[in-house]
Amino acid sequence: MAESPSAKKKREGIEETHGTPGAQGNGGSDGDSFPLAELRVRKVLRESARDKTIFLHGQVNGVSGDGTDAVVILEKTPFQEENISDLLKRHTKLQLQMTNDIYSTYLLYPPPQLNEIKTTVVYPATEKHLQKYLRQEVYLIRETGEDYKNISLPFIQSQSFSIQWVYNILEKKAEADRIIYENPNPSDGFVLIPDFKWNQKQLDDLYLIAISHHREIKSLRDLTSEHLPLLRNILEEGKGAILKHFAVAGSQLRIYLHYQPSYYHLHVHFTALSYDAPGCSVERAHLLSDVIDNLELDSQYYQKRALTFPLRADEALLKKFQEAGKA
Amino acid sequence: MAESPSAKKKREGIEETHGTPGAQGNGGSDGDSFPLAELRVRKVLRESARDKTIFLHGQVNGVSGDGTDAVVILEKTPFQEENISDLLKRHTKLQLQMTNDIYSTYLLYPPPQLNEIKTTVVYPATEKHLQKYLRQEVYLIRETGEDYKNISLPFIQSQSFSIQWVYNILEKKAEADRIIYENPNPSDGFVLIPDFKWNQKQLDDLYLIAISHHREIKSLRDLTSEHLPLLRNILEEGKGAILKHFAVAGSQLRIYLHYQPSYYHLHVHFTALSYDAPGCSVERAHLLSDVIDNLELDSQYYQKRALTFPLRADEALLKKFQEAGKA
Repeated sequence: MAESPSAKKKREGIEETHGTPGAQGNGGSDGDSFPLAELRVRKVLRESARDKTIFLHGQVNGVSGDGTDAVVILEKTPFQEENISDLLKRHTKLQLQMTNDIYSTYLLYPPPQLNEIKTTVVYPATEKHLQKYLRQEVYLIRETGEDYKNISLPFIQSQSFSIQWVYNILEKKAEADRIIYENPNPSDGFVLIPDFKWNQKQLDDLYLIAISHHREIKSLRDLTSEHLPLLRNILEEGKGAILKHFAVAGSQLRIYLHYQPSYYHLHVHFTALSYDAPGCSVERAHLLSDVIDNLELDSQYYQKRALTFPLRADEALLKKFQEAGKA
Repeated sequence: MAESPSAKKKREGIEETHGTPGAQGNGGSDGDSFPLAELRVRKVLRESARDKTIFLHGQVNGVSGDGTDAVVILEKTPFQEENISDLLKRHTKLQLQMTNDIYSTYLLYPPPQLNEIKTTVVYPATEKHLQKYLRQEVYLIRETGEDYKNISLPFIQSQSFSIQWVYNILEKKAEADRIIYENPNPSDGFVLIPDFKWNQKQLDDLYLIAISHHREIKSLRDLTSEHLPLLRNILEEGKGAILKHFAVAGSQLRIYLHYQPSYYHLHVHFTALSYDAPGCSVERAHLLSDVIDNLELDSQYYQKRALTFPLRADEALLKKFQEAGKA
């Protein structure tokens, strides 16, 4: 296949850094033992025909015969340039669907090793996990600084969603081999790690997360000018590390925070600009460059300003806003 | 990059017309004979990691040995609920990728018949077909207030893109029957009209545009606190009109401006929150509520602040930034 030198370099960059498929993190139980074949599918929680994903609620019968809940997420994987020729040549069957003038469509059945499915398992799963993945109506909230203090913050503090997995990463108790870059400073440093959603095999859907070593910043709302050194480190060193490891320039990265975040420990998303990443819409994402500029303008910008975010119908925080007559 | 709506519509149009699997149209050669295995891949024209699609430029050697161009589009297919249990039980291999706490990821290799790839062939393809599917690289620009004055504004003024079609709407010379709502005030009024991309047949992809009667506001960059009455009218009256005509509440609308806009006459986008509308990403969209709050904070906010936006490699404005050493 004709391939541009830069594309080739990019690919090799990935492979150099992450040469061990199947490598295991070192913080968990033996994943091989999850009995996928014995999973009984109870319900489709959500699916996307566009993304080629499906979210399942399943149950696994234990030795005692009782069912334990699991969430299983299946996602077809993006095409990999280096496998395309094999895919075209080594298909097991090619079935003509229709033909009209110069256009024709087929179903192509590739050999299994060229067409894997990414499978994510949450097991055992709680009711909260099941709700998290269930499709729901979505509403916009416009939260003032006062609303945050009176409604959102007490709610967040009352929740006990564990972020042990974040501390596992920061302390190298899990996923240590996946770390791309680290600035170890406890207040201004961070760890850069590929997001679970990215398989690192192609750059089109590049997705990394910078996780702050500072543990007292819950979200955008807590940021003041005192955090500018941390934010600038994440922006500049994060871009530098991605350029070095993946040969992707900073001008081709979308670098942003979520508000509300999915977990309350400061982290920043790095996605390929050409990748229409989930959660990069204007109602949830805040460009890190804008955040820095706003904090330079006014240290209290994110304490004072109203912030918009979407909430699903089943989210408890929506109920709190409704009870307060604010939604 | 996402496929253009027209390209998508065109492809889907083909399928609608030829719904019988295996049926052949009567205008083409025998599709069975397209020698897919002999295709030499010359170039990846475009790919989408999110959609799991890839667009290829290939060549097939004829009997005479000369290469004929083809476009081949591969797209992984959405999951089908009825096959899910088979997929989980009858996989050929399940490879553990990583495990951390209750989360684990695997690669699952299903048997070929449960994991087909939709393949669309355009053959023979002309240069026009190749260009149509070729993707452009996209770069982020961070434009300071000075950059706007020195680079972007002179460029915009040098362009002579006609916006007569906008004036035709405002003056009821065209599309008058499509107007949903109007506030006729020449400085604080606007016209609300469905966007061309929305067929108005379902609410899932609701898309309307508010076009300002004020003609001297090119974009976000021109807005000051003097325009707050106009912006508040668009926000409040726009939401009211959409609730009245389409029974969609304001809390289910994403209301935003583009920067850069696609035409330099102030307009505001209203899209269904649940609709993943093109152009609603954080690097291009600005929530109208945020714009209003920022102008209340500082009348000159949008003259002073750096603004980020994406430009495609073939756009003339990118060249201007490159010449100025700013991209």
